[in-house]
Amino acid sequence: MKPTPVGILGATGTVGQRFIQLLQGNPWFEITVLAASDRSVGLPYREACTWRVSADMPAAVRDLVVQPCEPGLDCKVVFSALPAEYAAEIELLMAAAGYAVLSNASSHRMDVDVPLLVPEVNPAHTALISQQRRSRGWERGMIVTNPNCSSTGLVLAIKPLHDAFGVRRMVVTTMQALSGAGYPGVSAMDSLGNVIPFIKSEEDKLASEPLKLLGTLSADGSAIEPAQMRISAACNRVATRDGHLETVSIEFERRPSVEEAIKVLSSFRSEPYALGCPSAVQPPILVRSEPDRPQPLLDRDAGGGMAVTVGRIRPCPVFDLQFVVLSHNTVRGAAGCSILNAELLVAQGWLS
Amino acid sequence: MKPTPVGILGATGTVGQRFIQLLQGNPWFEITVLAASDRSVGLPYREACTWRVSADMPAAVRDLVVQPCEPGLDCKVVFSALPAEYAAEIELLMAAAGYAVLSNASSHRMDVDVPLLVPEVNPAHTALISQQRRSRGWERGMIVTNPNCSSTGLVLAIKPLHDAFGVRRMVVTTMQALSGAGYPGVSAMDSLGNVIPFIKSEEDKLASEPLKLLGTLSADGSAIEPAQMRISAACNRVATRDGHLETVSIEFERRPSVEEAIKVLSSFRSEPYALGCPSAVQPPILVRSEPDRPQPLLDRDAGGGMAVTVGRIRPCPVFDLQFVVLSHNTVRGAAGCSILNAELLVAQGWLS
Amino acid sequence: MKPTPVGILGATGTVGQRFIQLLQGNPWFEITVLAASDRSVGLPYREACTWRVSADMPAAVRDLVVQPCEPGLDCKVVFSALPAEYAAEIELLMAAAGYAVLSNASSHRMDVDVPLLVPEVNPAHTALISQQRRSRGWERGMIVTNPNCSSTGLVLAIKPLHDAFGVRRMVVTTMQALSGAGYPGVSAMDSLGNVIPFIKSEEDKLASEPLKLLGTLSADGSAIEPAQMRISAACNRVATRDGHLETVSIEFERRPSVEEAIKVLSSFRSEPYALGCPSAVQPPILVRSEPDRPQPLLDRDAGGGMAVTVGRIRPCPVFDLQFVVLSHNTVRGAAGCSILNAELLVAQGWLS
Amino acid sequence: MKPTPVGILGATGTVGQRFIQLLQGNPWFEITVLAASDRSVGLPYREACTWRVSADMPAAVRDLVVQPCEPGLDCKVVFSALPAEYAAEIELLMAAAGYAVLSNASSHRMDVDVPLLVPEVNPAHTALISQQRRSRGWERGMIVTNPNCSSTGLVLAIKPLHDAFGVRRMVVTTMQALSGAGYPGVSAMDSLGNVIPFIKSEEDKLASEPLKLLGTLSADGSAIEPAQMRISAACNRVATRDGHLETVSIEFERRPSVEEAIKVLSSFRSEPYALGCPSAVQPPILVRSEPDRPQPLLDRDAGGGMAVTVGRIRPCPVFDLQFVVLSHNTVRGAAGCSILNAELLVAQGWLS
Repeated sequence: MKPTPVGILGATGTVGQRFIQLLQGNPWFEITVLAASDRSVGLPYREACTWRVSADMPAAVRDLVVQPCEPGLDCKVVFSALPAEYAAEIELLMAAAGYAVLSNASSHRMDVDVPLLVPEVNPAHTALISQQRRSRGWERGMIVTNPNCSSTGLVLAIKPLHDAFGVRRMVVTTMQALSGAGYPGVSAMDSLGNVIPFIKSEEDKLASEPLKLLGTLSADGSAIEPAQMRISAACNRVATRDGHLETVSIEFERRPSVEEAIKVLSSFRSEPYALGCPSAVQPPILVRSEPDRPQPLLDRDAGGGMAVTVGRIRPCPVFDLQFVVLSHNTVRGAAGCSILNAELLVAQGWLS
Repeated sequence: MKPTPVGILGATGTVGQRFIQLLQGNPWFEITVLAASDRSVGLPYREACTWRVSADMPAAVRDLVVQPCEPGLDCKVVFSALPAEYAAEIELLMAAAGYAVLSNASSHRMDVDVPLLVPEVNPAHTALISQQRRSRGWERGMIVTNPNCSSTGLVLAIKPLHDAFGVRRMVVTTMQALSGAGYPGVSAMDSLGNVIPFIKSEEDKLASEPLKLLGTLSADGSAIEPAQMRISAACNRVATRDGHLETVSIEFERRPSVEEAIKVLSSFRSEPYALGCPSAVQPPILVRSEPDRPQPLLDRDAGGGMAVTVGRIRPCPVFDLQFVVLSHNTVRGAAGCSILNAELLVAQGWLS
Repeated sequence: MKPTPVGILGATGTVGQRFIQLLQGNPWFEITVLAASDRSVGLPYREACTWRVSADMPAAVRDLVVQPCEPGLDCKVVFSALPAEYAAEIELLMAAAGYAVLSNASSHRMDVDVPLLVPEVNPAHTALISQQRRSRGWERGMIVTNPNCSSTGLVLAIKPLHDAFGVRRMVVTTMQALSGAGYPGVSAMDSLGNVIPFIKSEEDKLASEPLKLLGTLSADGSAIEPAQMRISAACNRVATRDGHLETVSIEFERRPSVEEAIKVLSSFRSEPYALGCPSAVQPPILVRSEPDRPQPLLDRDAGGGMAVTVGRIRPCPVFDLQFVVLSHNTVRGAAGCSILNAELLVAQGWLS
Repeated sequence: MKPTPVGILGATGTVGQRFIQLLQGNPWFEITVLAASDRSVGLPYREACTWRVSADMPAAVRDLVVQPCEPGLDCKVVFSALPAEYAAEIELLMAAAGYAVLSNASSHRMDVDVPLLVPEVNPAHTALISQQRRSRGWERGMIVTNPNCSSTGLVLAIKPLHDAFGVRRMVVTTMQALSGAGYPGVSAMDSLGNVIPFIKSEEDKLASEPLKLLGTLSADGSAIEPAQMRISAACNRVATRDGHLETVSIEFERRPSVEEAIKVLSSFRSEPYALGCPSAVQPPILVRSEPDRPQPLLDRDAGGGMAVTVGRIRPCPVFDLQFVVLSHNTVRGAAGCSILNAELLVAQGWLS
């Protein structure tokens, strides 16, 4: 199979760079278009971008000339790493013009006809695309989104537990990495030897996105009925580079033992892996038994950054179970999830 | 009033050094004795100790010759900064020999006849001392303890809310500073750019100590009936120097509004301050209204490190209220609390 | 003596805030004017400024209304914390209008008729002010500058050695703190677990400013003959909050022993201290004998941040002597030096 | 060719773990023996070792039973990751018993008949092995050492410049990573937001090892004439994980232009690479032109951690040239160098 040509919107930012890095060697996609803001348009990418995610910019993109973020790009699929304030409108324009837009932005995540997708969690939600096209009058275009970086890891860990035991209430505290704030992001003066107990809009996203992700597709595939659960979140920025760590206390419909929880998590199968998606990993959830794991430094790269790690599963004195979950925020929680979403769309036939 | 001579057990360690630092200039106490392990006995303190808590060791203690941790010390009050494994036995020996032992160790905190004391929270619990002397056959000695560093700040913030609205359940996640692990404590290899989601025994202490602190003294003063509440804790070590930050979600008997909670916290009065204790501060609880405070770096030194700071008070989607609390772990949560305990004992006449 | 009213230009930035903090309680000066850019003009300072240098903004300045950085301010002395691009012109305007401008900016430091001043090093260089007024036709105004933060500590440590043994060549490597880059300054993504081996223009300043500072005032007081020495600098940004650490290797006219060097440094007297300047400390240079000092964390606050600390004085296999020097970059190396300059001017009668 | 069986002495420590990690997949060597101190002997490696260099211990070594560090091991080549205090004697015993000992310890580096080897720098110095066997009466055993982690990167960068222009004097300041101190190594309390301007014995090693490495083998191959140059070093521990950064000022016999220096460094060829050694990389020296590189975070993994990166090459106001050099201290500067040394011995026929 010849790789599908893809473009990246917002290619010069941190997430855009991560898209480029993760797409190197992807057998299903090939970057042919890089698009960014006016400031960069017309420049070769090597001049438009200060590359920060590794020592050197991949050779394959150095000489691509940056194009504007608008219809006319020579590809059918675009990954959007745009800031939310630009994404809202540009993504609509691109989708209306027939592009499949795989978006990491928050702008359209909660739109009723837009799939909010984690391929291991709710692969069937792509059925919403038909409804999206009907309701918006689009023939070939689409917008498919991935969740916020702090929601992604949480939802992946919760999914098998929710299926088996029914999550009712959940209290979550996050300790999120610096890369989640982009570049330059957090000032070193605020971060060194400090914790900032606040991340704008993050707690709202963490309280709402999982409900859509774990929701039920209506019989006619036209809507998502959100999951019935309540989530309380406290989000903190800590001095780690990558990897969001979250402490979780959960109340279930039916209280599982620690062993049952471990079994359900460990035996969770990745549907995109079964479908052959190249970015999918099996197992998608690693359960660790050491008393002090997962740690961002040691565990964020599990499964090439695409697996989440759960540890310290134990009874909760207030609810039923407590544990710690870690996922790589810019791989699993951003560009990597978006790429896997695109692979799922290929596997399901949406992009042919 | 002439200052009471005091000794420090475990004077060469981190907490011991902090006792020395905080007692400088205290009008009620004067350090006359420094005691430590065999390795140090007989040496002048300047040679026995690698001073780490500030640039230079205070002149007043440089030439004190280190003595053994056993009866025979020339003072009536000793602060114990001993590790728990030594504290258990030595503190009993000292109390039996007539010393008032103000202990920062965990060994005797939960003994039924030992006051676990935070002077602003449960000053009446010192009545237990009479029972302690009766039950152990001591005439003049006593053991009075202060809680774990992560409990102290939490309990101080909870106290006025519990009095007013009745705490039923509470989910707490801590982000604790490096100094809490002593010296050398945590390896820089484990700490730099990382979070360790585990601190040995900490979650158990946080689940149990507040119940005793917020408990009710029996009518005859001989026992404490623990408070009826459930606490779930998840304790993490982060790369901050001082200041334990905690996120808290609480369910109350009677749900307060955010404004009611702010009012109750802001108007809390310090009884030891009213009694003239020199280390007490008024207000003991600071409520901040900025969206991103308290932060360890900016707020740990509030009230000279003796005040706790509460911020981000907001409704909780799962329970009633959520907030963030910060306290200085080696001042408020260790040596400072122990010194204030001693001051309370003076003010109440226990040390005359 | 009634305190002299002073203003601060660029009052909302990091250095401006440090001026305000350090001037609290200064018996010779009282802040009556805060000036900043258009964005802030007309607002009370508490609204114009996000206070970052301590937990709370001093009460004395909260309600001062921010004024524009131009003549018309109700004071005769202004401290300039302006960025260099604005300082060049505004400082000239202010001085021409009769203000004494004490500047932390680099714009006029190397002007031939502008004193570059560290009061302990070259107090006689204030004589240049007369020449400055003559050459520029100013009656009462003046510009007096303090050096770059990395030059200040170095020059103070070098001064007594240069007087005694004559510095010929010097190789310096700096490890500079984050606060030197202002706020937001360095991105946490660039700083965490990293060193950036480059600070724009810093090596040039370090190679040139000391020559003027250690230079000789001509007989008629109209010019400075720069010192004859060569300095090679390599400047690095490390993950410390405050305190510039510098390794130094020096070749002298006459090679001192380590003991001679220690003696000369330890016995150095502060002239501004002798003159009664309230921000001056004695000794201005601390020599430490521990093998691993000075360290930013432990030693930057020596002498309230106004003393420099020298350690590890040892023979150099290539030149004559090697050592390490530390100074507080935003106190000694910026606002504190500028305030001490103003105090020297008072003591010398220039501001009456 | 069948891989040569190798053992690791001191297999449970940080350097031992790095040996194991780097030897995974090496086509010339296969780990068959892990040896460590009495405490670990008899245990399967997975129980004897707390694995820290990556998320999980390689499967190939998990079940190897740890053996004592003494003759009787079933292999002919051993890598020594022993602490210097044990290495001195054990390495002699092993070599006397016929083992080829590739040592990372400092104990025998400066012995006159022991090669101190960096394969790209002085591959001919292996000739000393014959002299070593003669003088010590060994038939088949040998000791071959690699330099200190801070010397390795420096010497590799200096080698082509020394060959072309003749180094006379050099002033070096290092900013060394935490991993160089092993585990637990530096306390986080000493490291967070701090620099420690001292590393025991490091400056002496940096002043002496390069002279042997750049020295000349005598005509009969029996001795090394040290290079004639003087090196002054100032060694600092900074809060980076891996990668030693060094600022260097050099005086040459013949002053090169910046362009000449770049050319000589860029065109340096790796002899072990030409010989087919699997751990060798070409180019072994990367020259970067950005103003702010190399940085530990971005550049330490160049060439899989086996290349050194040089940047900021510029004229020095005191000597001839200044630059910054970075190398990965536990790969290039420790285990990786030792493995490459072993590969060179294979390529030169010493191990057949």
